[in-house]
Formats: sequence, C-alpha cells, structure tokens
Amino acid sequence: METRMGKMMKMGSIAEANGPPASPIAAATNPMVTPLLTDQYQFTMAYAYWKAGKHQERAVFDLFFRKNPFGGEYTVFCGLEECIRFVANFKFKEEEISYLQSVLPECEDGFFEYLREIDCSDVEVHAVPEGSVVFPKIPLMRIEGPVAVVQLLETPFVNLVNFASLVTTNAARHRLVAGKSKGLLEFGLRRAQGPDGAMSASKYCYIGGFDATSNVAAGKLFGIPLRGTHSHAFVSSFLSVNEIVGRALQTCDGLATCKDFVNLVQTWLSKLQHAVSLPGLFGDTNQSELAAFISYALAFPQNFLALVDTYNVMRSGVPNFCAVALALNDLGYKASGIRLDSGDLAYLSIESRNFFCAIEKEFDIPGFGKTGIAASNDLNEETLDALNKQGHEIDTYGIGTNLVTCYPQPALGCVFKLVEINNQPRMKLSEDVTKVSIPCKKKCFRLYGREGFPLVDIMTGVNEPPPKVGERILCRHPFIESKRAYVVPHHVEELLKCFWPGKSGEKREELPSLQDTRSRCSQQLQKMRLDHMRRLNPTPYKVSVSGKLYDFIHYLWLSEAPVGELE
Amino acid sequence: METRMGKMMKMGSIAEANGPPASPIAAATNPMVTPLLTDQYQFTMAYAYWKAGKHQERAVFDLFFRKNPFGGEYTVFCGLEECIRFVANFKFKEEEISYLQSVLPECEDGFFEYLREIDCSDVEVHAVPEGSVVFPKIPLMRIEGPVAVVQLLETPFVNLVNFASLVTTNAARHRLVAGKSKGLLEFGLRRAQGPDGAMSASKYCYIGGFDATSNVAAGKLFGIPLRGTHSHAFVSSFLSVNEIVGRALQTCDGLATCKDFVNLVQTWLSKLQHAVSLPGLFGDTNQSELAAFISYALAFPQNFLALVDTYNVMRSGVPNFCAVALALNDLGYKASGIRLDSGDLAYLSIESRNFFCAIEKEFDIPGFGKTGIAASNDLNEETLDALNKQGHEIDTYGIGTNLVTCYPQPALGCVFKLVEINNQPRMKLSEDVTKVSIPCKKKCFRLYGREGFPLVDIMTGVNEPPPKVGERILCRHPFIESKRAYVVPHHVEELLKCFWPGKSGEKREELPSLQDTRSRCSQQLQKMRLDHMRRLNPTPYKVSVSGKLYDFIHYLWLSEAPVGELE
Repeated sequence: METRMGKMMKMGSIAEANGPPASPIAAATNPMVTPLLTDQYQFTMAYAYWKAGKHQERAVFDLFFRKNPFGGEYTVFCGLEECIRFVANFKFKEEEISYLQSVLPECEDGFFEYLREIDCSDVEVHAVPEGSVVFPKIPLMRIEGPVAVVQLLETPFVNLVNFASLVTTNAARHRLVAGKSKGLLEFGLRRAQGPDGAMSASKYCYIGGFDATSNVAAGKLFGIPLRGTHSHAFVSSFLSVNEIVGRALQTCDGLATCKDFVNLVQTWLSKLQHAVSLPGLFGDTNQSELAAFISYALAFPQNFLALVDTYNVMRSGVPNFCAVALALNDLGYKASGIRLDSGDLAYLSIESRNFFCAIEKEFDIPGFGKTGIAASNDLNEETLDALNKQGHEIDTYGIGTNLVTCYPQPALGCVFKLVEINNQPRMKLSEDVTKVSIPCKKKCFRLYGREGFPLVDIMTGVNEPPPKVGERILCRHPFIESKRAYVVPHHVEELLKCFWPGKSGEKREELPSLQDTRSRCSQQLQKMRLDHMRRLNPTPYKVSVSGKLYDFIHYLWLSEAPVGELE
Repeated sequence: METRMGKMMKMGSIAEANGPPASPIAAATNPMVTPLLTDQYQFTMAYAYWKAGKHQERAVFDLFFRKNPFGGEYTVFCGLEECIRFVANFKFKEEEISYLQSVLPECEDGFFEYLREIDCSDVEVHAVPEGSVVFPKIPLMRIEGPVAVVQLLETPFVNLVNFASLVTTNAARHRLVAGKSKGLLEFGLRRAQGPDGAMSASKYCYIGGFDATSNVAAGKLFGIPLRGTHSHAFVSSFLSVNEIVGRALQTCDGLATCKDFVNLVQTWLSKLQHAVSLPGLFGDTNQSELAAFISYALAFPQNFLALVDTYNVMRSGVPNFCAVALALNDLGYKASGIRLDSGDLAYLSIESRNFFCAIEKEFDIPGFGKTGIAASNDLNEETLDALNKQGHEIDTYGIGTNLVTCYPQPALGCVFKLVEINNQPRMKLSEDVTKVSIPCKKKCFRLYGREGFPLVDIMTGVNEPPPKVGERILCRHPFIESKRAYVVPHHVEELLKCFWPGKSGEKREELPSLQDTRSRCSQQLQKMRLDHMRRLNPTPYKVSVSGKLYDFIHYLWLSEAPVGELE
C-alpha cells in the first residue's frame, strides 16, 4: 500500500502551461548566505547518500513549525524570498569545494566532482506566499528534489524562515495591540542580535505592520521609511545658549528671516513662565537642553522633534520644547512633537497633552494641542496593552529590544522533515505525539466560511480531489480520532504555490515586492476571526487532514513501529 | 571646577613612544556592516552639530552595560575586533552619500561634503581586551574624537558588542556547568536569529569555550573545528539493507577487504540478540535504521557516529549501532559513538553505557565500554545542571537554540554615553540611579589580592595617579556614600588599552587571533573567585570609583539638577 499511495501521489504533478518567463531572481540579500551556510552533517549525509548511490533519489521535505509563538494562535510566514534567492543562486565556488575537501579528507574525489556540478535546477519549491497567516503542522514550504541536494537546503531554509517569521509575527502582534491609528517605529538596531539580525528585523517588522525604522542601512536596502530625532547625548553636549553662533532662521515661506531665533525662543519661554493658565509649575528650565533644542530646530525647522526627558519632563523638557515650537510657529513652521524615553509614559503623555492644549487655548494656536507625542523605553506588547488600559496620549511608539530580539520567545523552532522518498511516504515517529510528522507529498487548502473568515486548513494527498465550494468534506485531526467535523466551504484557497518549478514545467509565481508582501500580511491578519487573534486565551485555529490521509498516517504509523514494541 | 577637572583630565594623554607599525586591519567580517548601519538620528544629530559649528568638538563616550546577563555576576566582553575593523574602514561610499541626500533633503550640501571627507583617523578607541571578564558600569570601550563622528559610531558599536558579549557569556556559562572534560558543540545555525546571528554565535561560542560548531560557513571563515553526524531524515530515507549495493569495506590498515560488510554486521546483530549477558531486551531491530547506519559506516568507517533515537533507543538504535561498531572493530576501526536527541537523556545515556560495557566484557573488546555518547535536544544551562545532579554518562553535548538565541535573556543592553565634551565632564542624570552615567574621561584598573583573585575594579580620572601595588587606595561605590573600603592591591592591571590611537601617537595593541582570544577568555574565567561564578546566588564583584572621582560625580550631579527641582 505504501508504494501504491506513493505512486498515486506522484501522478498528481501535472505540468501547467508555461506563461511568460518569470523575472530574474536576485542574489541573497546578505552576501554571507552561501551554500556553505549549512550544518556539516548535511555534507556527511550527502556523501553517505552519494556513496550508497542514493543521492539522486527523489525526496520530498516539508518545512513547518509545531507551535505558534508568544502564546498566540497565529504566525506570519516570512523568509520565502530569501529562500528562493538562495535556491536560484545555489552553486559551490571552487574555494568552497577546496575547504570542504580539507575538512572531509575521507571523502572520495568523485563526491567533490558531484558537488561542483549540482545546482537547484531539479528542485521544486512550493510555498505559502510570504506574509500569509499560517498555523502549526501545515507545510509552509514543500521542497522536492534529489535527496542529497534538498538536505543541503535544510539548514539555510530553516535559518532564513525561523527568525523572519518570528519577528514578523512579533511586529504584527505589536500592531494589533497598538491599534491602526498609532505610529510604530522600529528602533532595534543597537540591541538586535548582530548586524544582520538588525537588518532582518527592520525588513520583517515593516512587513508585520511597522511604519518606519531607525536603521539607515535597512532604509537604503529595502526602501523602508526612516525616522529618528536625537539622543540624550545631543542634549548633554550643549552647555548654554551662548554657544549658538548662527542664530538666524528663514520663515517657512522663505520670504523673511528671523535674525535672532534664540531670542524669539527666550521670549516665548518667558511668556510660558508667566502664563498663569498653564498647568504645572516650572521655574528656570535647563539651559543645556534649551540650547540643544534650539540648535536642533535651527537644523530641522520643518521636522522639530525633541527628546524631553534628559532632565525633567514637565519642569524642563516640555516647556523648553514648547518655547521652541512656539517660536517656530511664529515663522510658519509646525513642530513635529516630543519623545518621552523614561518615567511613567501614560502620566507624562497626558500631562504633556494637557500642557499643549492649554497653550493652544492661551495663545490661540489652532492644532497645537495635537502636537505629536512619541514614546520609547523598553516597550513591548504588555506595556502597550497596559498603556491602553490606563489611558494615555501617545501617538507613536518607538520599540527596540523586545521587538527585534523577540524577547519573550527568541526562537520559533521550524523543522524540515522528510515526508516521501522514491515515492515512498515516510514519517518521523516520536514518543511525543506533537513531534510526529505527517507523511506524504501533500496539498494544503484553507476553507472559508459564509462570513468570509477562514474556518480550517486541511492537508490532503497530492492527487486527492481538492475540496470544492459547497461540497461537504470531512476534516480530521491528524492524530486524535475523535476530533473530526464536516465542513462545507464557501471559498477554497490552495495554500502551496509554485515558487521554484525545477524541471516540472509548472509556472513560477513572481516574488512580490516588499510593499505587496506588507499589504498581504495586513489583509491576511484582518481576515482572521478576532477570537483567534486576541492576546488572552485565543481560540486555536483548526488544522486538519482528509479522511484518506488520516487513514494512511495511521496505517504507516503502525507499520513503522518496531517489532516487539509495546508502547 | 568643571573646567579645571576637565583640563586636568585632558593633560593625562601623553603620547607613548611608537613601536613597529601595527598590522593592517581587515574589513568587517560581514559586508553589510557599513557606516550606514546606524540609527538615522546619528545623522540628524551630526547635521545639527555641523550646522551649529560644534561637529569638531572633542567628545569622549563610554560604552558599558548596567547589569550582568542570565542572573549572573560576570560578563565576557566580545565584539572589539569587529568594532576596530569598522573604525579602520570607516568611509562613506558615494552611493551612500546619495542615499543620505535623498532621505535628508533639508540638509545643506556642505554637510554631505563633510560626510564625504570624514573617516576615523582622528578617533581614539581604548578598550578592555576581547575575551576579558567584565562587570557593570566599567567602560568596556572609551571612544574619543570629533563629536559628530563618534556619534555615528554609537549604534554599530553597541550592535557589534551587545550580542557578541551576550552569546560569549552564555557559552562560558554552559562551559562552566558542563565541566572541562565534556565536549561542547554549537548546533545553533538553524535556530539562530538569521544568517549572521548564526555566524556570530558560532564565532563567539567558540571563544566562550565551545569546542566545535556544525556551521560549515563559520568553520571556513573563522577556522573553527566542525562536527556533525546525520539526521533522522537520513535514517528514514532508507527502507532496508537490500538497498545497499556497494557492500565491500577495506580494513583500517588497507591490507584486506571485507567483501560483504552488511553480512558481517548482520552476524554481529544476531550474536547480540543471542547474548544472554547483555542488559535489556530486544528482538528485531528496525531495518531502515540498520541500513542507514551501515551506509553511514561504509562512507565514514573512521568516524562512525549514529543518531540512535529515530525508532527506539534501547530496542533498536543502540543494538543496531553496536552491531555496526563491532563489525567495524573487526576491520580495525573504532566507532566514535552515538547521539541521543530525545527522551530521558540521563537514563538513556546510562543504559547505553551499561550496554557498551556489557559488550566489552562479553566479547572482550577493550575500550568498547568507553564508546562516545553525545546528547542534544533543547539543552541549556538548567538541563546540564540537572543532568549533573542526576548522574549521566554523556561525553559530549550538542547545544543549539538556547545557546545561540540566548533564550533566557536575548539582549544585553549595552549603552554608549557622553562623559566629556570640550574638556567638560558630562553626565546623564536619571530618576533611576542605576541609569545615571559616570562622567569624565576615565582610566580603569583591576586590583588583585594576595591569592591572585581580582578584588575590585576602580575607575579614576585619567590624570589621577594610578593605584600602586602595596599602597592602600580608597574604593568607593559610585553612588552610595556608605559603601567604601580601603584596598591594598598585590597586583594592578590597567583595563583599557589603546586599540585605535587616532592621532594620539599612542601604540596600537594588535588584534589577537581567535585562538588567543579564546585562551584569554578561558584564563580570565579561571582567575575569578568561585563565589562570583556560581549559578545560585553568586557574590557580586565590586566596581568602584576613586575618592576624587566620587566627589566630582556628586558635585556635578548637584550642579546639573534643574533649578526648582525638589526630587
């Protein structure tokens, strides 16, 4: 039966008509991603396959994960583009072959000849499109090809997908809790796990719903918007306003020039100090800070955003900011706002907002109350949630460490499992049922209900008839006999698309742009039923197998158990 | 007084005699590390400095962290070599300038002219040598130069040091709990945070005391030994021994050939099945597994290591391994051992050892009882500690996810703070005293006691007389008045060495080799008093300031407080 099922499945791969040739595929974003970026055992296994004459046997591997991260019930799949770039450019360099010869001296020359020749022209990669919402057990990628070659892809694929999917999911979770109207800035470069950890984080946080990054290199490489202001060091580097030499500032319309902007600011500061209607109490503000703010405004009058917590937010930072912002306002500029980087962000944002509103009223400056308030300082999902519950006046969050390192769970745990070789379905058994893999080359479908929400994902053998709209289909839990249900889908979506056809003749899906992947992610998240997405006790989304696949899994499971096995 | 102290400190920088020219410094290991790998606000600040005519002001920044990671009381400093490579090659490319112009359209052309010209020839970097044991608050690096340039270094330096130091410390902690005699292999490539997270992890885990990595690219780039065996997929890819076509194997001495190695293995398996003295019960073993083991042995007879948990460790994996190992033994080869990747590792390792020992006795094969046992599967510090407490027979650990992602604490939190500008000491105040930075350009010393252990680290102003052997010196807690002690050092070590002299004329320290850094790390860890190193309730190592620096900090602190401040 194994062989029959295997053969049946094989027959399903019918080449579709070729469309126009797909666009060329760029090299890996990170030049360190080469075919050597893999575990040594992939080479020792490749050699053992080669030595046994098995290296050309056709194998099918699934890449999937077993558990959603961050205590949630969804994951966003990312990393596909980098995998396809890797496959498209897979070729050993001569110096790499030489290195392999030096570390594997026991291998025969013929093996290195073989390595010299291989590429991925005979490999097929089917995958869920990047930026899709995905669930445990469902293959995110199905990779088929000569067993020795596909094994070499295992480690780089898992590496490229793991962190990409994890950090995109983390970003999406932050977006969900922050709400659509808030600005979200990724500030993680300095705390990321190395340079490339930072680059990946910037890219995938943008896909996951962030608006911008502080990372200039990522801005350049990926076209992500950049944001940033100044640091505490900038504030401390000034001593007093006497340092400021160039004091002139043109008006926004370019028609006039204020000769002494410093003086204009000081006049406003004095007005603020004497305005009895303003909330809070403050006397002399910090002069280093004032000098720094004025200098920053002279450099960026169109985009003045000040970090206000170097000394004291309400007694110095906010009044100093307002004096500069009001002076800018006199010249036709609108200040961007303040950034809070310490203290009680809910309280300080409300106090700052009150101060801005009081100024709007006192000096009749329409819109001043809406001056932007950004917050940073070790923010994460929990703190955003807590801020929402307390009430706050923050418009924009800058998030670093917790976002980019995925602090609450810094690894996803994708795996890459053999499901078929030489048309023989294979499964990895384990005493732990959650670690048992689902055998056979499979197709995967998402079934949608009447309201447009996804209801269940289902895996079938490749040549089973696909689920049809309006026809009921039995969806079974892969391992628990009692868990099953009939579903009548209102819409059926096939999940695995062909991104690298090898020699199959299938049409290759174009790799979408970063913007398109970002949009896809947002649309996919919005399509989900809210109870799957909530932070507290979310409802697990159902993942199932067809009745036929269920039966086959359990037939194979039994046949694989060692004789004499009682467990 | 600020100015006086600042000037006094400045006078301390006396150029030393130049030695022979230091060796050239290579480019950054990761080609993505460019001067654009920084936060955008470093450029907006640079522009504001430039616009204010302040960009050439001489600034001193300290790079330090505030808290040891992983609940411990020590940290290993790493990342210095990458920082120095960055500094040595710091230069903007024209396309980078163009990109900056496009994202900062409000900046004047003169600023971009300035960026085109800058490099780090006027920057001085002093640092603790890489691989040193370090403690909170003590500057790991002191960076001095034109304020605008040094600000641009902040983000890449913090990025390059943060993860490097974190993962080295994590590796060192794993080594301490595993013990010197155990093999430690880094298997993290697939779960690391991206390609470069993996490359960094391989390098720094090796420095921290690991013996080898599975990451082939890291092996090539850094010269780290490689290790690996085969995966579960390799085992499942075989169906039966009938598949094996080339069955001949030469003896180890090359003088004879066994025509049918498969048959020899089967004969041994049958002997094992009938040997009543062997512990445990097993009948027919799994034939896929046997075929995989035989194929692997035919490929690597000198280095046969088998993953034994695909089906059942004691009923199939270990007997199959032993049959192959005994057949290899007949031909003069010594099998390397087994790898356990699931289940109760303590129990299974003991059972496997008993089995090996019983074979040694039964068949009189000296040394068979000592066959290697490697274990993997989500290991971390805790599980190694638990294994030690239970007793086990594992010789080698393969550790991945928890090691390379630094799971229990995936970020260190290094900071980069301005401590002096234009000879004026500066400090960052904060309501949270742990976040207050220590002002002034400083020297740092480690004072050793009679028994050779480090006693305390002390920071002084640069031109204070250094602590002297045999002379008592007052060491004060930087912020808590009551915490102080006199120490009479038996040995004094200056911590900050010059790794990039800029125009100071100071001699540049050579960057040591990876092996030397690894040795330094090991020596430094061994030098520490054990109570600082233990996992449970370690004793904090003392970090102090001189009496003079203490007085100055508190004078400055008071003078920086805003007028009207009551807190």
